[in-house]
Amino acid sequence: MPLTAEQLIEYMDFAAGLAQAAGNASLPYFRSAPAVEDKGGRHFDPVTAADKAAERAMRDLILAKYPEHGILGEEEDRVAGTSPLTWVLDPIDGTRAFITGLPLWGTLIALNDGQRPVIGIMDQPFTRERFSGDGSRAWLNGQPLRTRPCADLAQAKLMCTTPEMFEDAAQFAAFRRVADAARMQRYGGDCYAYCMVAAGHVDAVVEAGLKAYDVQALIPIVQGAGGVMTSWTGGDAQQGGTVVACGDPRLHQQIIALLNAPA
Amino acid sequence: MPLTAEQLIEYMDFAAGLAQAAGNASLPYFRSAPAVEDKGGRHFDPVTAADKAAERAMRDLILAKYPEHGILGEEEDRVAGTSPLTWVLDPIDGTRAFITGLPLWGTLIALNDGQRPVIGIMDQPFTRERFSGDGSRAWLNGQPLRTRPCADLAQAKLMCTTPEMFEDAAQFAAFRRVADAARMQRYGGDCYAYCMVAAGHVDAVVEAGLKAYDVQALIPIVQGAGGVMTSWTGGDAQQGGTVVACGDPRLHQQIIALLNAPA
Repeated sequence: MPLTAEQLIEYMDFAAGLAQAAGNASLPYFRSAPAVEDKGGRHFDPVTAADKAAERAMRDLILAKYPEHGILGEEEDRVAGTSPLTWVLDPIDGTRAFITGLPLWGTLIALNDGQRPVIGIMDQPFTRERFSGDGSRAWLNGQPLRTRPCADLAQAKLMCTTPEMFEDAAQFAAFRRVADAARMQRYGGDCYAYCMVAAGHVDAVVEAGLKAYDVQALIPIVQGAGGVMTSWTGGDAQQGGTVVACGDPRLHQQIIALLNAPA
Repeated sequence: MPLTAEQLIEYMDFAAGLAQAAGNASLPYFRSAPAVEDKGGRHFDPVTAADKAAERAMRDLILAKYPEHGILGEEEDRVAGTSPLTWVLDPIDGTRAFITGLPLWGTLIALNDGQRPVIGIMDQPFTRERFSGDGSRAWLNGQPLRTRPCADLAQAKLMCTTPEMFEDAAQFAAFRRVADAARMQRYGGDCYAYCMVAAGHVDAVVEAGLKAYDVQALIPIVQGAGGVMTSWTGGDAQQGGTVVACGDPRLHQQIIALLNAPA
């Protein structure tokens, strides 16, 4: 059941509050002292602490305001809820960016209506950038975002977080077919790369091995800015796995064909 | 001839002014409209425009204040100068980061005394981060920086901008020997990765194919924070080529040994 316009405004506003709370909880750990053993010999890991604190902060707000909603998060057990609406949370996407001090990680927040993610937020509290979308529109700090036209892979800027994310040699070979045909390919980026597609600075992201909470927030942002985001076979990407995000639907068709071409 | 304490303060202050001028010139092009053909059919490339404008702004300031100094920059011809002092400039290090919208590029400014770089600045105007060093001390926006201890590669966080920077298969294999023995390896970063070594968030950067203006500004920052930065054979890195930067000198010895081990 689609949200009404009033619900959309209400939940988008609430999601922004979740992002704020998550950033308040995680940012003190960013670039904090490195991992240490505590007195009990336990390992203290800043990114784990930040992850848990940020997800806790968001869950507390959801449970207080919408106890009927479901919650799917990276760090804690699933809350089923009695409503079809589920909040899908990744408190810190881009763990490696976080622990190497790079401001390319983000808090991912999606609201799924039972069919698909209908609201998405990617919040980067260090750079104070909040990307949001509802599948029809997308914004960076309230300013509208639009993907750029790029019909030809030979002209495309392509990103992928790391060559280690592919599950096997065939999957990596398929990725390389696309990468080798692109104008430029760069590793790194995590959730930030998808937001750069939405903003028209990157043309495509091709990745694999993703979880539902890695992708659901990004779909309404990329699609809201005019882009396309599917699995490698062109199907629904919301459960994660393989993902292709493109700013231009024509480029998306080209990349899907190349990913599925005989090796 | 080493700089006097007074000269060091004077030139460090002047270098900060160069960074400010470069940022004022380049930042308007960051995330601006994508590359287009102008009316004459010429290709307008925002990063090239930003590079040229930023280097021009810095050269104008140097020529006005220190006409006797030399200038070595990426974009324009070398100015020999009559003094042993030379400014070594890379207006935008991290071209791929710049054109994909990622705030990991930087303006690199070094002052070389004829023997070695004695002052270095890496300025990131979007995040408003200015890293600086004089070989004995290093700062981020005026706050002292210190590398973190990490004596063992198995515990190390390693960065490298891209696997495409290596000159041949043997060089890439040597890099992979190090990367495979590290706790974590991540691609991406450019000049920003070296500053994360200085700040104690990354333990090592191992790269190749660099130019003098890619590295000279980073040496006084990494060394000023307590780190080591050499070529892969342990020699002087200031002319570029292969580079290893480590926060902990013990880690540096391990990595040099592994890079030069029989394949």
